[in-house]
Amino acid sequence: MIAKTPNTPYYAVIFTSILSDNKKGYNEMSQKMIELAKHQDGFLGVESAREDVGITVSYWRDLASIKNWKMQTEHTEARNLGRSLWYKHFKVRICKVERDYEF
Amino acid sequence: MIAKTPNTPYYAVIFTSILSDNKKGYNEMSQKMIELAKHQDGFLGVESAREDVGITVSYWRDLASIKNWKMQTEHTEARNLGRSLWYKHFKVRICKVERDYEF
Repeated sequence: MIAKTPNTPYYAVIFTSILSDNKKGYNEMSQKMIELAKHQDGFLGVESAREDVGITVSYWRDLASIKNWKMQTEHTEARNLGRSLWYKHFKVRICKVERDYEF
Repeated sequence: MIAKTPNTPYYAVIFTSILSDNKKGYNEMSQKMIELAKHQDGFLGVESAREDVGITVSYWRDLASIKNWKMQTEHTEARNLGRSLWYKHFKVRICKVERDYEF
């Protein structure tokens, strides 16, 4: 689904990842984190797809709501598991969405 | 592949799309456009994945290089074909990448 985001400006977190060979528990945790994020203040939407690389873009009202989500306890635990078990490589990019349009 | 982008700030174009039932010629055009983008001045990298939704994030040095890519002739023709043939829905978001980190 394409996220229905409000008028710009708002923020995007682009999370790009390559999984390790150990994927046990990854999909469940990934789904759980998306459900949890949806209940965070300032959450605006999420888009996700995976082929060789996984791309998850979450949209947020402002930098403060991104920071709060980063500090959320279960999310922090999940990130630690991710680093030790599931991810071979990942990159996080915090962006200000300045303009958007759709068709 | 995760794009090897330079130090922030730089720009990202998040292109999220849902394809129509007519996918004929889409993959070839998609590959051709990525190859063409790589030769544009200011191009920094690209990441792409598709499941229900397709997400392609291209990275650029500045807004001017994004604008030049938008006006590139073959790219304009491909976008017109995309609107008339391949895409059911798409959204484009132009973003300033303010911060990034990786693992």
